Amino acid sequence: MALLYKSDPDRGRRWQALFAEHAPDIEFRQWPDIGNPADIRYLLAWQPPEAIETLLPHLEVLFATSAGIDQFDPSILPDALPVVRMLDPSIEQGMIEYATFATLWLHRHMADYVRQQREHHWQAHMLVPPGKRRIGILGLGQLGGAIARHLKGYGFVVSGWSRTPREMDGITTHAGEAALEDFLATSDILICVLPLTDATRGVLNETLFNRLPSGAALINMGRGEHLVEADLTRALATGRLSGAVLDVLREEPPAVDHPFWQDPRILMTPHVGAMTQPDTAFPVLLENLRRHQRGEPMLGRVDRQRGY
Amino acid sequence: MALLYKSDPDRGRRWQALFAEHAPDIEFRQWPDIGNPADIRYLLAWQPPEAIETLLPHLEVLFATSAGIDQFDPSILPDALPVVRMLDPSIEQGMIEYATFATLWLHRHMADYVRQQREHHWQAHMLVPPGKRRIGILGLGQLGGAIARHLKGYGFVVSGWSRTPREMDGITTHAGEAALEDFLATSDILICVLPLTDATRGVLNETLFNRLPSGAALINMGRGEHLVEADLTRALATGRLSGAVLDVLREEPPAVDHPFWQDPRILMTPHVGAMTQPDTAFPVLLENLRRHQRGEPMLGRVDRQRGY
Repeated sequence: MALLYKSDPDRGRRWQALFAEHAPDIEFRQWPDIGNPADIRYLLAWQPPEAIETLLPHLEVLFATSAGIDQFDPSILPDALPVVRMLDPSIEQGMIEYATFATLWLHRHMADYVRQQREHHWQAHMLVPPGKRRIGILGLGQLGGAIARHLKGYGFVVSGWSRTPREMDGITTHAGEAALEDFLATSDILICVLPLTDATRGVLNETLFNRLPSGAALINMGRGEHLVEADLTRALATGRLSGAVLDVLREEPPAVDHPFWQDPRILMTPHVGAMTQPDTAFPVLLENLRRHQRGEPMLGRVDRQRGY
Repeated sequence: MALLYKSDPDRGRRWQALFAEHAPDIEFRQWPDIGNPADIRYLLAWQPPEAIETLLPHLEVLFATSAGIDQFDPSILPDALPVVRMLDPSIEQGMIEYATFATLWLHRHMADYVRQQREHHWQAHMLVPPGKRRIGILGLGQLGGAIARHLKGYGFVVSGWSRTPREMDGITTHAGEAALEDFLATSDILICVLPLTDATRGVLNETLFNRLPSGAALINMGRGEHLVEADLTRALATGRLSGAVLDVLREEPPAVDHPFWQDPRILMTPHVGAMTQPDTAFPVLLENLRRHQRGEPMLGRVDRQRGY
């Protein structure tokens, strides 16, 4: 019985060592050295290979190396193949770090200070107490919930929106389309951590921006396709929005003439919010492999219909 | 009986309203309208006036509007005049926000991403797990201790140094000159929150930088005079240090030709780490006024000999 790994080769070596030490019964193979395809029951991949059904006839589970699985084209996956997302605690840790950094960057006027330094200009901006800064988390899954709880610890006024109702201590939660308007109206800083689905593609658009308080700011840690990029450029130009931090773009890297490169109100980072770390992800993956072998439900199993 | 306020006039109006509502027995006067000097028992100031003994003959306590009191020239203060520093919880909150922002800025390579964006360059840098990043807090007073505890919550490896021994859960503490070398050797990011005294002036210098791990980074949230600025420029040029975040400078604003303005490895902010907020500071001040009136010890009383 073998697991085929198809993702970053450097981290592959670490995965291999972890399997050798803790699960020697599962043979670890690294793409493109697949050996006898008939042995392969499990695939651990950022992106599965083409013609997966022909190539890996005995495949039983596809494990994503990422928390999101929107990079998978569902039309090329066998209908009955279970897909499992990665629940690595390092991803949660990385997302909390990034969300906190981006929130403090906006909350504490850091884009202004970076620009001022280049212009040899020394001017303090008013410090807003955290109890007067309202943070809205768009998407209250595992990551959004962790970010909400963490930012609440700073004294920010935190609310969250999700498709289905959630309850969280100390956090105002909103659910469903009808509640979106109220949620947006109280989000001075909006953090998008939605999964990418047909329902959420392009959700960060002019209509949504116009429902935020005037001068609000945006953090996109979801996917590039959540954002209608031209609408953000326009909202910043008119002052409707005051700033943005974007870890994901529609095209990565963006085209050389993309307006975001030169916009001092936008901080762009190259999709570095979080990264799966083999050492913390391995125990979660192994738990799922053992569950599968025992015929028990796996953690992070994707609802193929819903898309996350 | 009156209190004379001599600091930012805008915030003075808020202080006035708070006194009117909660302590009408203490008349609030705002510099330069001092009225009859004989009435003034208390002075709340960022910087006391000159000839204080002659001007305010019945002064009983000098309250600083700030956490540090190094801006006071001790030679112009009456020897027996009690000096009390500000213990506003908003200062602690602001310092935690700033220290976290600056730590994440360095930890997550944000100076590189800001520079790369200007250069239209898209490149991810390795994400270091917080458990492999060692943060050293230089100064473990009220603020340093709060910062240490907070950063520990992110999973960073936190240690601290203070002149006199302190114990803190989960944090390695070092005390005294002899322990400084060991402390510095394990500080990948060094955060200075020392008080400024004759013993700490210029402490952030080439000798200290050479004791840090190669490629370490510096955050100065203490005072500008802690840092020998030319030594930092040199340490960044040789690569001994990799970056710095400075909220305080020797001269504020720095001269127009100061090299820090144009150094992309340095992020400078205009002394905005924390700001006393009348609404949260007032209860602390009032408690001290009442303690003084009852003849009890005040909180935050400065040891004039030690300087903090």
